[in-house]
Parts: sequence; C-alpha cells; structure tokens
Amino acid sequence: MQHDQDIVETAHAMADAARRAVLPFFRAADLTADNKDAGGFDPVTEGDRATESAMRAVLAERRPQDAIIGEEFGPKAGDSAITWVIDPIDGTRGFLSGTPTWGVLIAASRDGAPVFGVIDQPYIGERFWGGLGQAAMSGPHGTRPLAVRGDRSLDQSILFTTFPEVGSAEEAAGFHAVAGQARLTRYGMDCYAYALLAAGHIDLVIEAGLSNYDIQAPMAVIEAAGGIVTDWQGGPAQEGGRVIAAAGREQHQAALEILARHAP
Amino acid sequence: MQHDQDIVETAHAMADAARRAVLPFFRAADLTADNKDAGGFDPVTEGDRATESAMRAVLAERRPQDAIIGEEFGPKAGDSAITWVIDPIDGTRGFLSGTPTWGVLIAASRDGAPVFGVIDQPYIGERFWGGLGQAAMSGPHGTRPLAVRGDRSLDQSILFTTFPEVGSAEEAAGFHAVAGQARLTRYGMDCYAYALLAAGHIDLVIEAGLSNYDIQAPMAVIEAAGGIVTDWQGGPAQEGGRVIAAAGREQHQAALEILARHAP
Repeated sequence: MQHDQDIVETAHAMADAARRAVLPFFRAADLTADNKDAGGFDPVTEGDRATESAMRAVLAERRPQDAIIGEEFGPKAGDSAITWVIDPIDGTRGFLSGTPTWGVLIAASRDGAPVFGVIDQPYIGERFWGGLGQAAMSGPHGTRPLAVRGDRSLDQSILFTTFPEVGSAEEAAGFHAVAGQARLTRYGMDCYAYALLAAGHIDLVIEAGLSNYDIQAPMAVIEAAGGIVTDWQGGPAQEGGRVIAAAGREQHQAALEILARHAP
Repeated sequence: MQHDQDIVETAHAMADAARRAVLPFFRAADLTADNKDAGGFDPVTEGDRATESAMRAVLAERRPQDAIIGEEFGPKAGDSAITWVIDPIDGTRGFLSGTPTWGVLIAASRDGAPVFGVIDQPYIGERFWGGLGQAAMSGPHGTRPLAVRGDRSLDQSILFTTFPEVGSAEEAAGFHAVAGQARLTRYGMDCYAYALLAAGHIDLVIEAGLSNYDIQAPMAVIEAAGGIVTDWQGGPAQEGGRVIAAAGREQHQAALEILARHAP
C-alpha cells in the first residue's frame, strides 16, 4: 500500500511539474512547430519537449529505479516492476490551435498493463485520475469521484473520435458505420474524450493508429471508473492501435460487432 | 460614451448571471434533453431556458427599453436603438457531452448590426468580448487584449467548423475544398472556434445554417480584434446562414473563391 501510495503521489507530482512546464508555451504568440512527419502535419513544440523533460526530472528525483517510455525522448530502462508511459502533450494539433482539450498523459504500468493513470488539462486546471483503488477528478468547480454511465443501447450512445478520417479507409468505414447508429457523434477532443467517458458524460470513444503512450493513461482512468477499453476485437489495448473505450458492455458489444464487419 | 459604458456593463452583468444560472446544469447526472427538432437531434436543456431567463432578468432590471432576440423565448419589442441578440447555450450537443467549449453568446445590436459582443465559457471561466473600443479576454490565467493573427496564405491557415457534415451537400463540398488546401482542419468547438480566431490562434471558421443569435456576438468580438466576418459571398453575415470568419484578408479571399465554385 505504501508502494501504491508512492506511485500515486509521484504521478500527481509529475502532472504538477508538467503544468508548470507547459503553460508558458500554450497560446504563446511565437509557438513554433517542427514537422516530425514529412508526409503530414505533426507539430512538436518546444512545449512538448520541455514538458516531458519536467516529468522525467520528477522521476529521476523520486523513482530513479523505474523504466520510462515517453513520446518525445527514447525509452529508459529500469530495474523495478514499474514503467512510466507518458505523453507530454496528447493532441498537439489542438494545442497548436489554442483549444483547451489537449492533455498530459501519465501511466504507471506493471507487466505491460497500466495500473494507475492521469489525464491532466493544464489550462483549465482539470485532472482525472484512476487506478490503485482511486477514480476521481478535480477542476475549477471542485473534486468528485469518477464513474461511467453504464450500459446503454447504441442508438442512445454518444460517440467521440478525434478526427473524421479516423485512420485507414476500412477503419473510417467501421467508425462511420457505428456513428450512423449512435445518437450523437462529436469530434476534436483528443484525450479529453476519454476523460469525459470516465466522468460519465459520453458512451464510446473509437480511434485507430494510437501508440501505447496515447492509451495507457486513459485506460487506467476509464477502467477505474468502471468502463471498458479494448482493441476492435475485444482484446488488450495497452499497446495502442485500434482502440475502443466504452461506458458499458451493451454499447461496447454493439460497436464491436459493427467494427468487425468493416475492419476485420 | 456613458451610453456605451452602460451597454458594456450590462453585457458583462448578463454573462455573470448566465454563468450562475447554467453551471448547475453542466455535467449534471440527470440532464434531460428535449427533442426540439423532430427530424434530428437538437437537445434543449433546462439549463438553456434557465440561462436565457437569467439574462432577460438582467435586461428587465437594467435596460427595460431595449428589444431582445433570444434562442429560447420569443422576441421582445423595445423602444430604444438597441436589440440584444442572445444564445444561452451555443453548442448544446457539446454541452450535453460535457465538453468545455460551448458558450453563452450576448450581442448588443444597433440598426441590425452588432456593436458589442461577449462569448463566455462558464465552466473554464473564460470570457472574450469586443466592440465599442474594446477587445479583450479574461480567463484562469489572467486578462489580455485580443488580436487576430492577420494575413496568412491558405496553405498556412488553421480552419475550424463544428461538424464535418457542415450543411447541405454543396455547402459540405465547399468547406472540404477549402479544408483540402488548409494547413490543418479541426472540428467540434462550436462558438469557441470564433473566440480562438479573435484571440489569434486560428485563421478561418466556416459554417452554414447559422441563426442571427449564433453569429452576432462572435462577429462583434472578431471585428473588434481586427478580423473579418462575412457570408460566403463576402456580404453581411449578421443574419446568419453561411458564414466565414477570417483572421486576415488573404485567407478570407482565398477561401471565398473556393466556396463560390462549390456553393454559389
């Protein structure tokens, strides 16, 4: 338990350090964006690097024995059972556009699966965390427990993804087939959509092409809040790829069946 | 000037009252949504009505002589030169989903055109206002002036709209033709996209099917920040319909030419 408590406290300390590091870059007039992917648009800001460095510094101080997998810098080996899987700015396109729905993602993983996660939105000052017996959020209007909405039919479900292209043509076809049966489909929220699901406001998030650092923190938070995160076949999702998060078994199962027909 | 000051103070008092009225409904577990439009999904919450009532009460107290056009209740005639054009919750679908990017819209109009506007995001505690010599925002990290980014080529422009269907088939074709030439396209922000444009973060917002209460407040804020808001032919936009907002003439003109080819 003391070990668990140290993981929880370290994760919050990392999120606090990330807030301080990233906020000077958000909505800064002279924000520059490198082009990481020559084939498309994938901005990596100075803020991204500064924020991951700030989180790594907390780990170097508090838990130097743990391994680290981060988006911006290379993996660091460890000699404990814990690997920290971190994304300093999930949603760099949203960050670059000034939207307040990007996030800092922090997961502590054991045997390849996340046991504790944090989704932090520094500008709003909102934090969602879950695992090791906890599931809660804090924000401008206080602190409260997290719990998903539970079972709901697909035609009553609210569905999110970040952008309507989703991924490959068959991945897009699968997503839009689910969307066609959902009550409401919304775009553009990046990791914030997973936080909304954990907090009980929406039913499904379906994405493709994710990395492990994109999904491990949301997975820990959502599972702690009673939700489900799998790949599109219903298997483990912690390595990323095609991911579906659901507030209940009913909408999870209904969406999986549709996805399987379009993107087997 | 004293007259102008009273309009500014009344608008802020309305936004303050709206925040108090709407926040108890946001992310409330028992949020109900009426179906206003039998053909689609257009939730109108109790929060919508309570918020418009709260703003109308401020006007009844401070400026009973002015006319009112609101989304939720019928128009009220006046015997002054000022009409208040208000939308208590712009982005009810986002509101229903828990996203923090819906807004309260307040415009004071004279001779049919907005002279002062407010875009308020109650959950974050952010407010953007402009007109009558002012253009500024306040939020969790302080207060600062608003200014658009200025001229930029379309291939360097960041474009927003609320949902990828946009409107009719030809309206969608026009939008996506512009999107195909833009640097980056994002969805899902409702009125918050106009605030981002006024604050200098993005270049273009293109929408269709708007009402006057959707656009008059954003128009006042964006024009005060140095931006441009017109219809898709470059004409007046204060009655809504097809609207384009731009951070500079260059991206405005480039987008208008493309839109005219697809949606004349």
